Amino acid sequence: MKPVAPVVMILAVACTFSATAAAQTPAERAIKYRQAALSTMGFHFFGILAPMAKGERPYDAQVAARSAKFVAELSEMPWHDGFPAGSDAGAPTKAKPEIWKDKAKFDKLAQAMQAEAAKLGQVAGTDLATMRTQVQATAKACTNCHDEFRAR
Amino acid sequence: MKPVAPVVMILAVACTFSATAAAQTPAERAIKYRQAALSTMGFHFFGILAPMAKGERPYDAQVAARSAKFVAELSEMPWHDGFPAGSDAGAPTKAKPEIWKDKAKFDKLAQAMQAEAAKLGQVAGTDLATMRTQVQATAKACTNCHDEFRAR
Repeated sequence: MKPVAPVVMILAVACTFSATAAAQTPAERAIKYRQAALSTMGFHFFGILAPMAKGERPYDAQVAARSAKFVAELSEMPWHDGFPAGSDAGAPTKAKPEIWKDKAKFDKLAQAMQAEAAKLGQVAGTDLATMRTQVQATAKACTNCHDEFRAR
Repeated sequence: MKPVAPVVMILAVACTFSATAAAQTPAERAIKYRQAALSTMGFHFFGILAPMAKGERPYDAQVAARSAKFVAELSEMPWHDGFPAGSDAGAPTKAKPEIWKDKAKFDKLAQAMQAEAAKLGQVAGTDLATMRTQVQATAKACTNCHDEFRAR
């Protein structure tokens, strides 16, 4: 067992990330994190699945299934680490202060979205009509939260 | 069946994203996407798991398992949509042109990282020593690709 070498190795890999992260406040890190996670989800949902549902892009079962799987996985990521107390400010953000004033309601709407996204992950590769119905249900769940908790 | 209303609904949700995405070239969209996905992965790997492995943060099996699950899921996301031909330029990027000159090697290293990340997702909640060993193996897989294909 050589405990030192591996730590040095990790440090070498982590140096770029750590230098950036160290320059950020915890609030700034959380804001950037939630924006990156939600943006990755948006790429697949609004950039691939919604255009397929709207007929602007040909339906491809394999592509739809992959993007929907990613959306389902990403839908779980923003909440625990992305919205800690105090992260209502610290970097540019559209998240409204109301999130932390009514966290129970925010969490409930976030969970409702996750449930719809999980279903989307299961059915998006079935056929266009099935995918479209679930894209609509998921989009509605996005809106339900954005209307109340995201600035325009 | 009312086909019009759902489409309008989706458009309403998608408008912010679409306005942003429409202003971007395909290369710019791909670059921003891969950076968002890899940054989300980095938050969990370098921001949570590596500090636990290094003893800078207390080991918490539940937190480690959650972050490692996310790392495993995120490790699959950047490749297909994030590195299309022509996305070597179009927005600031550290991705070297060598990626598209030797895509087979790049893909092989990306797959090797995914394999290590998948293992990490399975074992990170076991105990600190087990997690540390697999964090090191995953960090090595990151480095193997970054050394050759990412600018410093």
